[in-house]
Amino acid sequence: MISVGVIGYGYWGPNLVRNFADMDGARVARVCDMSLKRLELVRRRYPGVPLGTDPRELIEDPAVDAVVIATPVASHFELAMGALKAGKHVLVEKPLAASAEEARRLIEEAERRRLVLLVDHTFVYTGAVRKIRELVQDGGLGDIYYYDSVRVNLGLFQHDVNVLWDLAVHDLAIMDYVLDRQPAAVSATGMSHVAGSPEDVAYLTLFFEDSLIAHIHANWLAPVKLRRTLIGGRRKMIVYDDIEPSEKLKVYDKGITVHEDAENIYKLLISYRTGEMYAPQFDTTEALAVEARHFADCVAAGTRPVTGGEAGLRVLRVLEAATESLSRRGELVEVRT
Amino acid sequence: MISVGVIGYGYWGPNLVRNFADMDGARVARVCDMSLKRLELVRRRYPGVPLGTDPRELIEDPAVDAVVIATPVASHFELAMGALKAGKHVLVEKPLAASAEEARRLIEEAERRRLVLLVDHTFVYTGAVRKIRELVQDGGLGDIYYYDSVRVNLGLFQHDVNVLWDLAVHDLAIMDYVLDRQPAAVSATGMSHVAGSPEDVAYLTLFFEDSLIAHIHANWLAPVKLRRTLIGGRRKMIVYDDIEPSEKLKVYDKGITVHEDAENIYKLLISYRTGEMYAPQFDTTEALAVEARHFADCVAAGTRPVTGGEAGLRVLRVLEAATESLSRRGELVEVRT
Amino acid sequence: MISVGVIGYGYWGPNLVRNFADMDGARVARVCDMSLKRLELVRRRYPGVPLGTDPRELIEDPAVDAVVIATPVASHFELAMGALKAGKHVLVEKPLAASAEEARRLIEEAERRRLVLLVDHTFVYTGAVRKIRELVQDGGLGDIYYYDSVRVNLGLFQHDVNVLWDLAVHDLAIMDYVLDRQPAAVSATGMSHVAGSPEDVAYLTLFFEDSLIAHIHANWLAPVKLRRTLIGGRRKMIVYDDIEPSEKLKVYDKGITVHEDAENIYKLLISYRTGEMYAPQFDTTEALAVEARHFADCVAAGTRPVTGGEAGLRVLRVLEAATESLSRRGELVEVRT
Amino acid sequence: MISVGVIGYGYWGPNLVRNFADMDGARVARVCDMSLKRLELVRRRYPGVPLGTDPRELIEDPAVDAVVIATPVASHFELAMGALKAGKHVLVEKPLAASAEEARRLIEEAERRRLVLLVDHTFVYTGAVRKIRELVQDGGLGDIYYYDSVRVNLGLFQHDVNVLWDLAVHDLAIMDYVLDRQPAAVSATGMSHVAGSPEDVAYLTLFFEDSLIAHIHANWLAPVKLRRTLIGGRRKMIVYDDIEPSEKLKVYDKGITVHEDAENIYKLLISYRTGEMYAPQFDTTEALAVEARHFADCVAAGTRPVTGGEAGLRVLRVLEAATESLSRRGELVEVRT
Repeated sequence: MISVGVIGYGYWGPNLVRNFADMDGARVARVCDMSLKRLELVRRRYPGVPLGTDPRELIEDPAVDAVVIATPVASHFELAMGALKAGKHVLVEKPLAASAEEARRLIEEAERRRLVLLVDHTFVYTGAVRKIRELVQDGGLGDIYYYDSVRVNLGLFQHDVNVLWDLAVHDLAIMDYVLDRQPAAVSATGMSHVAGSPEDVAYLTLFFEDSLIAHIHANWLAPVKLRRTLIGGRRKMIVYDDIEPSEKLKVYDKGITVHEDAENIYKLLISYRTGEMYAPQFDTTEALAVEARHFADCVAAGTRPVTGGEAGLRVLRVLEAATESLSRRGELVEVRT
Repeated sequence: MISVGVIGYGYWGPNLVRNFADMDGARVARVCDMSLKRLELVRRRYPGVPLGTDPRELIEDPAVDAVVIATPVASHFELAMGALKAGKHVLVEKPLAASAEEARRLIEEAERRRLVLLVDHTFVYTGAVRKIRELVQDGGLGDIYYYDSVRVNLGLFQHDVNVLWDLAVHDLAIMDYVLDRQPAAVSATGMSHVAGSPEDVAYLTLFFEDSLIAHIHANWLAPVKLRRTLIGGRRKMIVYDDIEPSEKLKVYDKGITVHEDAENIYKLLISYRTGEMYAPQFDTTEALAVEARHFADCVAAGTRPVTGGEAGLRVLRVLEAATESLSRRGELVEVRT
Repeated sequence: MISVGVIGYGYWGPNLVRNFADMDGARVARVCDMSLKRLELVRRRYPGVPLGTDPRELIEDPAVDAVVIATPVASHFELAMGALKAGKHVLVEKPLAASAEEARRLIEEAERRRLVLLVDHTFVYTGAVRKIRELVQDGGLGDIYYYDSVRVNLGLFQHDVNVLWDLAVHDLAIMDYVLDRQPAAVSATGMSHVAGSPEDVAYLTLFFEDSLIAHIHANWLAPVKLRRTLIGGRRKMIVYDDIEPSEKLKVYDKGITVHEDAENIYKLLISYRTGEMYAPQFDTTEALAVEARHFADCVAAGTRPVTGGEAGLRVLRVLEAATESLSRRGELVEVRT
Repeated sequence: MISVGVIGYGYWGPNLVRNFADMDGARVARVCDMSLKRLELVRRRYPGVPLGTDPRELIEDPAVDAVVIATPVASHFELAMGALKAGKHVLVEKPLAASAEEARRLIEEAERRRLVLLVDHTFVYTGAVRKIRELVQDGGLGDIYYYDSVRVNLGLFQHDVNVLWDLAVHDLAIMDYVLDRQPAAVSATGMSHVAGSPEDVAYLTLFFEDSLIAHIHANWLAPVKLRRTLIGGRRKMIVYDDIEPSEKLKVYDKGITVHEDAENIYKLLISYRTGEMYAPQFDTTEALAVEARHFADCVAAGTRPVTGGEAGLRVLRVLEAATESLSRRGELVEVRT
C-alpha cells in the first residue's frame, strides 16, 4: 500500500487523485491546493481525505509515502527537492523542472536517498506509444527517416514558458522513449502574438548524428485541435493521430523504390511498394492508471521508472537548446549532453 | 480565338491540353513531347492535332499564338525565352524558372515585346484560394498571426530540385496571392534520404516585418497525402484542407480573449470567443479552366495576368533564400528584393 | 439539498453517482448493487457512503429523498413502483419500463403522489440536441422531410430486449423531444444472428401524418461505432455526428430548387441553393450533470421534468409497435395513442 | 479493334466516350445526342468523330460494331433491342431496362444472335468491389450476417423512376456480384417530398433464405454525399467507404465472442476479438476503363460478360419487388425468380 499526497488540484491534479484513489494498493493520504474552492471540490468528491493549503504540511506528513506534484513548472524544483529531502518518493508533472541544472540536482538527490523520482511523461504510458516503440525498436520500420509531430490547439497560454515547454515537451518525451536516441542540435523558430507573453507558435527541428530529422509544430492559437505524428522509415511508415476516436495508430507497409524513368531522364521515380495499411491493436488502459501503477511498483521494488529523472533531464536539455535557437531565429544550437 | 502550342505531355501537360481543347475561343494548334509514346496518346485523344518532338518547330509554328510549357524546371528559361523572342505569349509551369535571375530576364523580355507571361500558379485560380484572399483582404480575419501549411505525400522525387521547389512552391504562390506581402527572411531545415538526391523533407519558416510568421512543411516521403493550411487571425481563423472532398474551407469565428485567472496568478487564460464555424461557398470550376480563360483574356486585352512573371519572381526569391538557409541548417537568410 | 440513493453500479450507475456526488445541492446517500465487487469499487471511490445489496433497504432508507435506478429494464417497474410507493422521487434508466402498460401505471402512481418521475433520456440533456430542437422548432429548417439516424457499434448484447430497445430508444427519445410529434405507424425489419438472442440488427421506419418519414438503423454487430443523424428540411438540413470530437452539429443552408431541364425533358433538375454550412456553438456541459440538476430542480419546485413519464411512455409505444412489426417482417403497425 | 457508337452524351456518356477513345484496340466511330450543344462539345473534344441526333442512324452505321447506350432508362429497351436486331453488341447504362420483362426479352435477343449484352454495373469493375468479392467468396469473413449500404446525396431527381432505381441499383448490382446469392423477399418504405415526383427517400430491406439480412438507404435529399457499406461476417467485417480519398476498404479482423457475464446474469456479453484492422491494396484503374476493356474482350472472344443481361435482370426483379412493397408501406413482397 502506497499513500500519496497530491500538491495541486488544478487542471491535471484531479486526474492524478482519481487514478490513485481508484488503484488497488494505493490511497490518497492528503491533498494540497492554494485555492479553497478547489479544496472544497476535493472534499465533496473524497469526503475523508485531509486537505490543506500549505505544501510543507503535506510534505512533512508522516502518513504520506510519496508526493505527487501537479503545480506550475516554476515551483517543481523547490517542491520536489523538499519532498526528496523529507524522504518521500516523488512523481512530478512535466517538464521535470525549469532548467536542466535543476533536473540534475533532483536526480542526484533522489539517487543519494534511493528514492523514486518519476516525471509524468504521460504519453509514454499509453498503449499507442508503447506500440510505436515496439514497432520502431524491433526494426520493422527499417532506418527511421523522419519524425514529424503537430500539436496545436486553442489552449491555455502559459505566462512563464513558451509553447515548446508546454506542448512540444510531450513530443520530446515520446521521442525520447520511442527512438532511444538523442538529438545533436536543434533549430527553432517562433513568434509571440500576445504582448509580454512567450512564443505561442513555434517550430522545432531536431538533427541527429545520421540522416534522421525530427520536427515539432506547437501552437496555442490554432482553431482546431491536432495531434498527429508521422514517422517515416525505410520499410514502413506510421501515422499516429491521437484525436481519432479509434484507429489512432496506422502502419503503412509502404515505402519507396527508386528507379530511373526510362521515358524521362530528368526524373527519379519513387513508387509505392504494394503492401497494405494496418491498424494494430494496443492496450487502451488510461495512461495515468498505468503510470500510477508503475510508480507504486517502482517504490515497492526500489527500481527505476521508465520515465525517471534522466528522461526528464534529456527533455529539458532539448528545451533549453530550442529556446536559445528560438531567440536567434533558427540558428543551429547544439544540445548539451 | 487563341491557338496554343503545348510543350510537354508528361504529368501535367495532359491537363493543360484538355482545358485549352475544351475552352471556347481556344484551340490546341500543336503538341510537342520528346516521347513518341506520349505523342501517340495525344494522337489517339485529339486526332487532328499536329505533333512533334522538337520544341523549336512548335515555337516557330506561325499557327501558334501562345506557347504553354510543361517541362522540367531546368528547361523553362530556354523554352520560354525562345518563345518570347519568337513573339509568342507564354504560359509556363511553376516555378517560372530555375533562378530569380532567369525570371528577371524573362519578365524584361515579355515587357519589351508586350507579350503575356503567365506562370502556372494553379491554386491561385481555385475558388477556395480566391475566397481565402477575399477573407484575408477584407479584414474579416483581423491581423494575421500565422500562415501554416503542410503539403506532404509519397510523391515523385525530382532529381534536380529539392522538395521545397516542388511542393512548397505551391504554398509560396498561394501566400503571395493571399497575403499580398513579402517575407523579409527565412529559416529552412531539411534532409535528403536518397543518396545523390536533393532534400526530400524540408521545413521552411518565413519571417515578415511584423509578428506574422509563416511555415511550410514539404515532404516527398509521407505515407499519406496531406494538404492543410491553417491561417490564424486576431478575429477569425481559417482551415483550408484541400484533401476534403467537400467543405475544403472552414472559417472559425473564434479567437482569444486574454484575461488573468483570479484563481491562479501563474496563468494567463485564453478562452474561445463564442462564434461558430462556417464553410463558405465558393466557385468549384476547375482551376486550370479558369487559368486558361484568364490567359486568353490577358492575351486578347493586352493586360497583365494575376500570376505574371513578377509573382513567379517573388516566389523564386524565397526559394533561393530557403535553399541557402537549408544548406546552413536553419540559419536566417534575408530574402532579396 | 437532495439526497439520492442509486440502485445499480454496473455500466451506467457510476456516471450517475459521480454526477450527483459532484453536484452542488445534492449528495449520494446510499448505493446498492448485487455485486460485492462493484460495491467495493464504490467504497474506494466514495469512502463515506453507506452500501448494500438489497434495493428495498435503500428504498426504505429515510435518508434517501430520491431513488435513481440503473438496472436492467426488466426490473425497472418493480423498483420504480416500490420507490414511488415509499414516497421517493424516481430517476430511472431508459427505457422507462418493459411495456407501455407498466409505464402508464408508474405515471399514475407518480401523479397521485405528486412525485417527480424522470426517465433518463440522456441525449435530451446534451447541448447538441437542445440546439437541434431549437433549430427545428423555430422553423429555420422549414418543413421537415426526413429524420434518419444510424446508431451502430460492436456492443453489449442484451438478452432480454432486442437492439431497438437498447439503441433505437435513444433516437426515439431525441425525436420525441426535437420533433414534438408522434409517429402514426411503423414498419420494422431485423434479424438475430446469435441463437436464442433477440434481433441484433434492426431497421425501423416511422410514418407520420404528413410526408415526414423517419428511420433508425440499430446494430450491435458493427465493426465501427457510428452515431449519425441526418435531418432534412425544406430550407435547411442538419448533420449531427456524435462521434466527431468537435463540430458534432452542422447546419447546411442548402436545399433544392426544382426546375425543368431545358435540354433534357426526361429530368427534373434539383440544384443546391447557394448557402453555406455552419457549425453552431452549443453548451458542452456533460448531459448527466444537466439532467441531475434538472431532476433536483423539479423535485425542489414540484415541476414536471422535460423527460417525464409521458415521454418514456411515448417511446415505449413506438418500441412495442416496432417489435410487433419486426415479428411480421416489415408489416405496417399503428402506434397506439 | 472494336468500333463503338455512343448514344447519349449527357451526364455519363462523356465518361464512356473518353474511355473508349483512350483504349488500345477501340475507337469511337460515332456519337449521338438529341442536343446540338452537347454534340458541339463532342466535336471540340474529338474533332474527327461523326455526330448526329438520330439514334437509328448510329445503330445502322456499318462502321459501328457495338452500341453504347447512355440515355434515360425509359429508352433503354427500344434502343438496345434496335441495336441487337441490327447485329450490334450492346453496352447499356444501368438499370438494364424499365422492367424485368424487357430485360428478359433483351437477353433472349442477344442469346439468339450470339451478341454481347453488357449492363454498365460500373462498381463491379472497381478494384475495391472485386477485392470485396474475393474476401467474401474465399470464406475469410465467415458466414455473412448483414450487408448494409447508405447511398445518399443532394442529387439529380429522376422524374420517371424512384430513388431506388437511381441509387440503390448500384448496391443491388454490387451485392449481386459480391454475395452471389439472390434475396427471397423485400420490404421497402419511402416517401416523396416533391409533388408529382417518385419517392426521393427510400429504405429497402432484403431477406435471404438464411439469417443474412441486407439493407439499402437511398436518398436524393441529403445535405452530404455518403457512400458507405458495412458487411458483417462471423469472422471479419468490412467497411467500404467510397468517399474516402484513400483507404476506401477496411477489413476488421474482429468479431464477437458470446459468453455469460458472471457478475450479471441479465446480460450476454459480446466482446471484440483481438485482431487488427487492415486496408488491403487493390487495383485503382478507373472502373470504366476496366469495363470497356472487358466489353471488347467479350466481343472478341464471344464470351459472356461478368455483368451480362442476367445480372441486369436479377437487379430488376429486386427493384420491381421493392417498388411494390414501397407502395404498400413495407409489406413483405417476394422476389420472383
